Amino acid sequence: MKIVIDGMGGDNAPDEVIKGAFLAAKEIKEPDLKILITIDAKQLSTTFSRLGLPVPSEGETLDLNDLGMKFVGGESDNYNFDEATAQSNVHFVYSDGVIRVEDNPMEIRKSKKGTSMGVAFDLVKRGKADAIVSAGSTAALMVGGSMVIGRIKGIKRPALAPIMPSITGNYLLLDGGANLECRPEMLLQFAIMGSIYMNKVMGFESPRVGLLNIGTEKEKGRELELAAHELLINEKTINFIGNVEAREVPLGACDVIITDGYTGNIYLKTVEGMGGFMKSSMKTLFGKNFSTKIGYLFAKSGVADFSKKTDYREVGGSPLLGTAKPVIKAHGSSNSKAFKNAIGQAVRFVKSEAVNEIEKHISSGSSI
Amino acid sequence: MKIVIDGMGGDNAPDEVIKGAFLAAKEIKEPDLKILITIDAKQLSTTFSRLGLPVPSEGETLDLNDLGMKFVGGESDNYNFDEATAQSNVHFVYSDGVIRVEDNPMEIRKSKKGTSMGVAFDLVKRGKADAIVSAGSTAALMVGGSMVIGRIKGIKRPALAPIMPSITGNYLLLDGGANLECRPEMLLQFAIMGSIYMNKVMGFESPRVGLLNIGTEKEKGRELELAAHELLINEKTINFIGNVEAREVPLGACDVIITDGYTGNIYLKTVEGMGGFMKSSMKTLFGKNFSTKIGYLFAKSGVADFSKKTDYREVGGSPLLGTAKPVIKAHGSSNSKAFKNAIGQAVRFVKSEAVNEIEKHISSGSSI
Repeated sequence: MKIVIDGMGGDNAPDEVIKGAFLAAKEIKEPDLKILITIDAKQLSTTFSRLGLPVPSEGETLDLNDLGMKFVGGESDNYNFDEATAQSNVHFVYSDGVIRVEDNPMEIRKSKKGTSMGVAFDLVKRGKADAIVSAGSTAALMVGGSMVIGRIKGIKRPALAPIMPSITGNYLLLDGGANLECRPEMLLQFAIMGSIYMNKVMGFESPRVGLLNIGTEKEKGRELELAAHELLINEKTINFIGNVEAREVPLGACDVIITDGYTGNIYLKTVEGMGGFMKSSMKTLFGKNFSTKIGYLFAKSGVADFSKKTDYREVGGSPLLGTAKPVIKAHGSSNSKAFKNAIGQAVRFVKSEAVNEIEKHISSGSSI
Repeated sequence: MKIVIDGMGGDNAPDEVIKGAFLAAKEIKEPDLKILITIDAKQLSTTFSRLGLPVPSEGETLDLNDLGMKFVGGESDNYNFDEATAQSNVHFVYSDGVIRVEDNPMEIRKSKKGTSMGVAFDLVKRGKADAIVSAGSTAALMVGGSMVIGRIKGIKRPALAPIMPSITGNYLLLDGGANLECRPEMLLQFAIMGSIYMNKVMGFESPRVGLLNIGTEKEKGRELELAAHELLINEKTINFIGNVEAREVPLGACDVIITDGYTGNIYLKTVEGMGGFMKSSMKTLFGKNFSTKIGYLFAKSGVADFSKKTDYREVGGSPLLGTAKPVIKAHGSSNSKAFKNAIGQAVRFVKSEAVNEIEKHISSGSSI
């Protein structure tokens, strides 16, 4: 299995991406795993020096010449990297520059085709990689997923599906921001894709699907929610539990929560903001006086558990659901651990064959 | 000043409403404060007995006969209530039944006109009270506010404006759920009303107004946000700071955050849900083992500060902005303290003359 990771995407690229890839190669138990890193050719030698790695000479040239890309290294790795590297199957692919948040995301298909993300998409498109991971521009990743890799047949719009922590475990949010305005049929497809992902990739038996709403009664909400509720309740392949209020979701009310991308993005960021609120409050709480500082020393292990539970780096990334190959969006501020976990998620996504499952459901779905 | 409180609204009515009114009468320093409680006449004697109060005989009948209402007691209170009551100017007004969340809110003007909330609205309408406080059905309160009391001239739609806790203090959210779908001009009016409220009632010098959005750049969001941004940036009477992401709001990014009622309600309830998440996590944190339990003993005072900060009961209620007289929505699960604070908020609202200020701005507003 080959996973390509956008070497220049995210606040901490390329250093943390590379470290994360090495960690993944060392720790992820997957016999045939190969990790491809698309890296800006101009920055390769300075990056390697900074990381304390010997600067490699160029490896063999694969059939990617027309894009001006080269693999550096290969399966029979001949660098003197440390143990992690020696055991690994990490490869570097040349690229040129990076697509930024402020760039027009459509350019990923045109002027930014040669960037680290553009090259990564091309590798997936050409069957040289099975999945892509990137911490770069979400908008560009969505354009690339929808238009370079392409949608699963029958899927109207792919959705961003972040995995969120609840009191009782995790839940999937769709759409986290890919489609600001949605039609009811899109919400139904999100529900089907989310169910399959939670079942096949995350191992939930019969994921409880809820429709995010301002009240639990079926007549609550805007026209979108009223129509989506009707579609969801008639979809036999999912375990729809009805409308769910936002306040119940972090308490574990459902395993998949469905909403439009605008609302989903606001929800997602409110949860993040309240995470920050919590962290700051915790600091104030324990920093208040001498006694509370002593309290911290005793409570430390509990605080660590809490931090781990709410740390997005533990989860890895958010899948983009509905594309013909797995796409994982890693958090923009990912560190090596987060990248490793995002790669792990991509591996599970590929192995689960959730893409095939979604395609099967959608093509057979009489209700869509 | 006369504040009428819906005696039967909320999960803990009428007992906590009555206790809250007594607390308010005792603690709120406002020389002419009189509190009217609309109470179900059928429940009056059992309620008073349960509260350990002597069951009053009916007091004088005011000019409200046509509604079948009577004041019980009055300024020259002749019950042997405790000190709080003796000092107070709390009055009871008869009503019949209660309007429930599941009732059609429009009935507050028709078949439910005689309920505790209906009578309270009528008192305000007739000038017998200056403001209304209720923990009852939000939908009915909005209908009563808009249609019985009526809107301020020029206001398109009143908005629910909950006061929320941030790391640095408080901020106002409009619309918290009164208008699920909004036009850009409504958002502009929300911004003006919210600014005036935070300035006149809450004492903010030049409240920072933010537009809730999925990104800070002005081209972010749906058509609604794009158009509202344009209106807000051209409104000279407010301190508009641009788009604000949901994750920045709980960290104190602005003093007034503007959005449509659907998104606002989702935001509000996500914050509540994360509050529950925090509380539960805190319990797990300190309950983990013997050491963390000891930690709690030392950190207790910090935990208490934190609980107080995030306790909606400390704030009181949410104003409904845009009605011709102040309307305060108290939380459905309010206890006596929350009711007292909601009454206090109503008092400050009346004294601030924010309603006049809004009317003045809207009528002179060239931009609306």
